[in-house]
Amino acid sequence: MDIYIALVHHPVINRAGAVVTTGVTNLDIHDLARAARTYGAAGYFVVTPIEQQRALVTRIAEHWRMGGGPGLHPQRAAALALVRVAPTLDDARAAIAGPDGPPPLTVATTARTDNATIGYGTLRSRLEQEDGAALLVFGTGWGLTGEAMASCDLVLPPIEAIAGRAGYNHLSVRSAVAIILDRLLGARSESLPGVGR
Amino acid sequence: MDIYIALVHHPVINRAGAVVTTGVTNLDIHDLARAARTYGAAGYFVVTPIEQQRALVTRIAEHWRMGGGPGLHPQRAAALALVRVAPTLDDARAAIAGPDGPPPLTVATTARTDNATIGYGTLRSRLEQEDGAALLVFGTGWGLTGEAMASCDLVLPPIEAIAGRAGYNHLSVRSAVAIILDRLLGARSESLPGVGR
Repeated sequence: MDIYIALVHHPVINRAGAVVTTGVTNLDIHDLARAARTYGAAGYFVVTPIEQQRALVTRIAEHWRMGGGPGLHPQRAAALALVRVAPTLDDARAAIAGPDGPPPLTVATTARTDNATIGYGTLRSRLEQEDGAALLVFGTGWGLTGEAMASCDLVLPPIEAIAGRAGYNHLSVRSAVAIILDRLLGARSESLPGVGR
Repeated sequence: MDIYIALVHHPVINRAGAVVTTGVTNLDIHDLARAARTYGAAGYFVVTPIEQQRALVTRIAEHWRMGGGPGLHPQRAAALALVRVAPTLDDARAAIAGPDGPPPLTVATTARTDNATIGYGTLRSRLEQEDGAALLVFGTGWGLTGEAMASCDLVLPPIEAIAGRAGYNHLSVRSAVAIILDRLLGARSESLPGVGR
């Protein structure tokens, strides 16, 4: 499947459980774009209802894509070329589907709840074997609202360490995106390219 | 084994291959501390020869540990409590070893070369089965110098996507740390805690 990621700034909750709109940050744009590019994603949607913030994201991405960026930082330009904006998650889905296509398989991620409906290994197999597009959805702040999560087709379980290592779950969204992309799309070979050559 | 991570600001190389000292960043302190705590690491060393930068790191960590941080952000305080500083990688090793202990198994990471000496699965098993301490070493900038890498006991291969997904390798150090901790210490169960309960 073609893989897309979405970083959702609304609707998400804050520490107190209130529904809020978080601000976009320059570093999230860069880190997630680089991770998306590393794992061969087809696009990275920054989802915010605030028009000025979408314009800011577009301006940053275009700077790296077309301004002084490409010559000095060709890898950064290749990553930032994946960045797109959408006012809502539904708009991102519609943009991926196109005028006539089926909607992408939409997969929510969460650190909060235990309402997972698919494991990482199972989803990894589906992404490899099925056609079409999948959209991995990440919430900022303290995560997607229950309603936003319920609008997705599937929910992945929280990221956890092996038993005995930890019981903490408060990764940055940058770390969570990187880990989940690797769990779903990372090489698993134990061959060492430098050994024996 | 007890796991430690080190973020090395010197000696690392820049884009042109010159040996440089990079500056510490507030966000690296937070993101790596949160990832280290999530995967049960015993400590996170920020390695820089610049005394003022070590003092800055200590001041930031203490703010979250002891200032206004713990009440409002107890999870952040628990993460930042892992942060330590060292002027050199050898000093970090010595601090982990203590006055009489053996040095930690020191494992370099790299995005650049193909001189890996151990795979992720093999190291994962060793970390689970052996006693003592292991230190995972991450370079800032364009990575550890060859000399710094050669001073480590083992070298992990670069992070890669599965074949057919990508050929790009330019993750942020924040993403790389998160992914490598998950490859070595992440839960691999497919059981879904929310299903059937």
